[in-house]
Amino acid sequence: MRAYYLDSLGSFDGIVARDTPEPTPGPTGIVVRVRAVALNRRDVAIVNGTYPLPSVPGVIPVSDGAGEVVAVGPDVTRFKVGDRVVGSYFAKWLDGRLNVGLIDQLGCTLDGMLTEYALLDQDWAAPIPAHLTWEEAASLPCSGTTAWNSLTGGEPLLPGQTVLTLGTGAVSLAAVQFAKLMGATVISTTSSAAKGERLLALGADHVVNYATTPDWGSAVRELTGGAGVDLVVETNGPKTIEQSMRATGLYGQVVLLITGSASRPGIEISNAAYASSMATIRRVFVGSRTHLETMLAAVSAHGLRPVVDRVFDYAEVHEAYRYFDKSSGFGKVVVRVA
Amino acid sequence: MRAYYLDSLGSFDGIVARDTPEPTPGPTGIVVRVRAVALNRRDVAIVNGTYPLPSVPGVIPVSDGAGEVVAVGPDVTRFKVGDRVVGSYFAKWLDGRLNVGLIDQLGCTLDGMLTEYALLDQDWAAPIPAHLTWEEAASLPCSGTTAWNSLTGGEPLLPGQTVLTLGTGAVSLAAVQFAKLMGATVISTTSSAAKGERLLALGADHVVNYATTPDWGSAVRELTGGAGVDLVVETNGPKTIEQSMRATGLYGQVVLLITGSASRPGIEISNAAYASSMATIRRVFVGSRTHLETMLAAVSAHGLRPVVDRVFDYAEVHEAYRYFDKSSGFGKVVVRVA
Amino acid sequence: MRAYYLDSLGSFDGIVARDTPEPTPGPTGIVVRVRAVALNRRDVAIVNGTYPLPSVPGVIPVSDGAGEVVAVGPDVTRFKVGDRVVGSYFAKWLDGRLNVGLIDQLGCTLDGMLTEYALLDQDWAAPIPAHLTWEEAASLPCSGTTAWNSLTGGEPLLPGQTVLTLGTGAVSLAAVQFAKLMGATVISTTSSAAKGERLLALGADHVVNYATTPDWGSAVRELTGGAGVDLVVETNGPKTIEQSMRATGLYGQVVLLITGSASRPGIEISNAAYASSMATIRRVFVGSRTHLETMLAAVSAHGLRPVVDRVFDYAEVHEAYRYFDKSSGFGKVVVRVA
Amino acid sequence: MRAYYLDSLGSFDGIVARDTPEPTPGPTGIVVRVRAVALNRRDVAIVNGTYPLPSVPGVIPVSDGAGEVVAVGPDVTRFKVGDRVVGSYFAKWLDGRLNVGLIDQLGCTLDGMLTEYALLDQDWAAPIPAHLTWEEAASLPCSGTTAWNSLTGGEPLLPGQTVLTLGTGAVSLAAVQFAKLMGATVISTTSSAAKGERLLALGADHVVNYATTPDWGSAVRELTGGAGVDLVVETNGPKTIEQSMRATGLYGQVVLLITGSASRPGIEISNAAYASSMATIRRVFVGSRTHLETMLAAVSAHGLRPVVDRVFDYAEVHEAYRYFDKSSGFGKVVVRVA
Repeated sequence: MRAYYLDSLGSFDGIVARDTPEPTPGPTGIVVRVRAVALNRRDVAIVNGTYPLPSVPGVIPVSDGAGEVVAVGPDVTRFKVGDRVVGSYFAKWLDGRLNVGLIDQLGCTLDGMLTEYALLDQDWAAPIPAHLTWEEAASLPCSGTTAWNSLTGGEPLLPGQTVLTLGTGAVSLAAVQFAKLMGATVISTTSSAAKGERLLALGADHVVNYATTPDWGSAVRELTGGAGVDLVVETNGPKTIEQSMRATGLYGQVVLLITGSASRPGIEISNAAYASSMATIRRVFVGSRTHLETMLAAVSAHGLRPVVDRVFDYAEVHEAYRYFDKSSGFGKVVVRVA
Repeated sequence: MRAYYLDSLGSFDGIVARDTPEPTPGPTGIVVRVRAVALNRRDVAIVNGTYPLPSVPGVIPVSDGAGEVVAVGPDVTRFKVGDRVVGSYFAKWLDGRLNVGLIDQLGCTLDGMLTEYALLDQDWAAPIPAHLTWEEAASLPCSGTTAWNSLTGGEPLLPGQTVLTLGTGAVSLAAVQFAKLMGATVISTTSSAAKGERLLALGADHVVNYATTPDWGSAVRELTGGAGVDLVVETNGPKTIEQSMRATGLYGQVVLLITGSASRPGIEISNAAYASSMATIRRVFVGSRTHLETMLAAVSAHGLRPVVDRVFDYAEVHEAYRYFDKSSGFGKVVVRVA
Repeated sequence: MRAYYLDSLGSFDGIVARDTPEPTPGPTGIVVRVRAVALNRRDVAIVNGTYPLPSVPGVIPVSDGAGEVVAVGPDVTRFKVGDRVVGSYFAKWLDGRLNVGLIDQLGCTLDGMLTEYALLDQDWAAPIPAHLTWEEAASLPCSGTTAWNSLTGGEPLLPGQTVLTLGTGAVSLAAVQFAKLMGATVISTTSSAAKGERLLALGADHVVNYATTPDWGSAVRELTGGAGVDLVVETNGPKTIEQSMRATGLYGQVVLLITGSASRPGIEISNAAYASSMATIRRVFVGSRTHLETMLAAVSAHGLRPVVDRVFDYAEVHEAYRYFDKSSGFGKVVVRVA
Repeated sequence: MRAYYLDSLGSFDGIVARDTPEPTPGPTGIVVRVRAVALNRRDVAIVNGTYPLPSVPGVIPVSDGAGEVVAVGPDVTRFKVGDRVVGSYFAKWLDGRLNVGLIDQLGCTLDGMLTEYALLDQDWAAPIPAHLTWEEAASLPCSGTTAWNSLTGGEPLLPGQTVLTLGTGAVSLAAVQFAKLMGATVISTTSSAAKGERLLALGADHVVNYATTPDWGSAVRELTGGAGVDLVVETNGPKTIEQSMRATGLYGQVVLLITGSASRPGIEISNAAYASSMATIRRVFVGSRTHLETMLAAVSAHGLRPVVDRVFDYAEVHEAYRYFDKSSGFGKVVVRVA
């Protein structure tokens, strides 16, 4: 079979394709004929060597992939040949809380999905809703689980409450879709009118242009009648947290996904924005397999489809990474593994 | 003004209309020109003298009513003249938990809404969503709050999860509507095909006829693929709890609203239905003003309308009670207070 | 080595000792030189063939055991040779919720601890607090985890609140000890003055004799000044649930561990006891490894010691089971595996 | 009677004593013969005019006071003459969540306790545990409720878990005492060995001197074996939050009580401290009457006594404020209202 391997860091050229024998499952293993994978920011960080969890040299990259089971080990009970599955980001984190013994990740410390045949443990995969294409299924594990855990993992979000999403990254788009399933009102920020239209078409109720409205936190607050939003899916961290806090209601939840960047290595919130707030700041980092599965159950029940931006061929992996790295597109970048 | 008074118990004829001066608000009082009231089972129980909380002799009956504010006391901050409001069932229970000091109820220990002008404290009312008619608004406080508290007051209910409602009482109908707002799948039981059609039109995803399927608990379970439902709004208690438990999933919530009746003075669950269940049985008894307000916020955000069965005129109060008492209708019985 | 095997059901004589080679650990396996095991009611039920989860023919019985690690597989990271460990009851249930894929239990569907050398996966064991003897450590997994999950797995139990325990079974004794760690007031029921003294010495604040006070539910309630207890560790189910409900406060938690017996196959609660109660009835069935570990952390921090009633020698296994089966003793029945 | 009034801001001399008639209770009012009051930082801020909630000109200052009921209005049910009571900080916030309609505070927008006779509504007071002196009772409402809400208002704190308190302010001292009731291990920071000894005597398990150990966050972490603490009562905010985050475990709670000061108007957390943390940052601002009452119930059950530093006479109010303002003492500053 042909698989890709991260032989060296620092450049996408370090992702090298090689022919290699098909894997054979161990007692609880499954072999998945991968049909599509999708890229996430962490995949680029891993190639760059900037990801907080050091990758294994020569690892098969990419956490998110979908395919069908073609072989199962003798002790496998979760799947049978022919089942459609996706991999789980934190492969070993099944439920409850994360701990240092569960931090292995597909495409980082465990071989990932950028391969024709992926070898997984049965516990590292979840079934795909029937209505999803391979490309759509591959688009869900990382960003979908992150958005789901953000919306459902803390205080309950109720119909009639308001969610704020920022920009048009994959987590934010998934959050728009899931928040609408939950009956919430969605306010989204964006930098362009065109993206604003697409957000409204996706389900957002209101759009605020942060490029033209620097004080967008107050603008968002006004849209809620002054009460502030109930939950912010804070995908940007340092750059936006101040305005996010200004937009947040008295007991709101700020789900903080990013805590620093090269230019802003930390979180700063002014006393003016924080002093009279009872908002809780919660951290989310993707989620467990249970988060993935409950998210997929909701996707299945509602026939929901993630947004796919562009699909590359299996031979175009480097182009896919480069496109994704530069892109501020709308939707997932997928590689079809024919 | 003309108001009704519960002068004696045991018969609807004990509800007597009398002319009386319009009330004047105290410092924190508001006077509401009532436009519509709706009946609940507790109103009949109060007339019969079987309600657990003894009513005050000569009380103005009925907890649920809607109208506009026509006068406010000098210290009132929550409302102004012209505001449209409903009363809150447990008038003094604003948030958190109920306690014995907060059990006063409109139409029982406090004068209720079956009057042209209701005198309330500002804290005993909540604003009405703009899209609701008076009849619809009056239809929400008791059954809507009960359904809302049932669905939102315990473990979070997530999109893709399943809710079971029983029959077509007002709480069950409201639960169908709210569960759909929350993205849940709804299975409803009923005894007639005609009611089944109405439930499906209201939003239920599946209907099970308990008259033709006595083992409806198993039938409901099958509709979930064997996993069982995540939440039951158990409006019937003794008669149905066994089947409800059989329908409930491993960690489901059974929200028990009734614990006994004349014919079945208690709850019985077989070991067969309970032994391998990790289901939680939670009690709900209407809710606080915060439950009422968050429910109304959801109703407002979604333009939701409760089901109104029949509207009687203000002179037809006895007919309204009699119709309601005998009725196994579909929707609320309302009295228009012109 | 010498191990015991459950070769046939229906009699303790079906537990047969045999010499067998010492096990060798697989990649993630550990071999534990067992030093002590403790019996639980489920061990008797398994021998009798009445346990809800059918045991594997010839299984090594007994879930609860303590020993030191003598060999580890090459991929083991959780333990090293010399570590003192106990087994986890639901070996594969690490955190979060139980599901049908995680119901394997030591001494039932997986070989247990009644052996000189137990072969476990590294994930099926937890470290023992340094201050515990082998007998004490072996006394904790099943009853300690059950008591811990009962007290900590639902609504928080706060200092100054009151816990009711029933009788002197191992779960109840552990619950007394843990509830005192949590700062709660403990009321315990018992049938004898002698046991009452022992309960008070163990930490209970009040004892009620249910043999002399049949209406012990009201007696317990009086001890709380009429408010009722905040949490009941309901170890008896059908026989006591009615009185337990009468003892429980408005928003109390009834943690129901037993839902039926041969003589009373189900739960019955009268309307009189239930109607004005907002108590939640929650089910607990032992717990996850996370429950076990957090319980052991508390035991370690406080130097707490479970109560050991009697220790038998490894050759006295049948006597140990018979003593335990008949016993209404005070504390755990342990077998020393020399 | 003689009461104090905050006639002007900017100086303690603005607190002026005046003779005035004893108050008479309205229908739900109670008159309390105040025996002792205690000062809190907010009382100084109010005098300085820097408190976020502007005080009413001429208000009777001070939120925290204890005394006995000497008169009750005709509709009072909660108290009778002779009852010992304390006032509740947010007088109108009874339970659940705070909202803008409930922000009235004793000694700020409502007359407080620095008077011989305080006029309160029955809902604004709670009963005092029998074992407390007047000085001790007065020492609890603000700092005790804040500490209690910090420890109990979020994720449950379990025996065996670890709490970090900072310095020796009243909230921190109360937190040490309550955390020990809850069975937690307590680590406290301080700047002097003498205070360290007093903290250990009060119940702290470990003390870290932040003056000699600037990297105290790591030192605290080491004391937990590297796992980090489970909860930080973050009484200092900007100055300490970075080290607090470094001390906090993966899923710890940081209860943030202060978000800014004149010198540091905001919160800053480095990416290094935050990136691999799943800690939740929760805000607490004193608490509701329910928090006060459950805290007092724990104090009562355990015979706990807050630390009183110094008691001034009723004529020495200005000295009391000045002593308190300069003090970095250990315990509450009380004024005896003879």
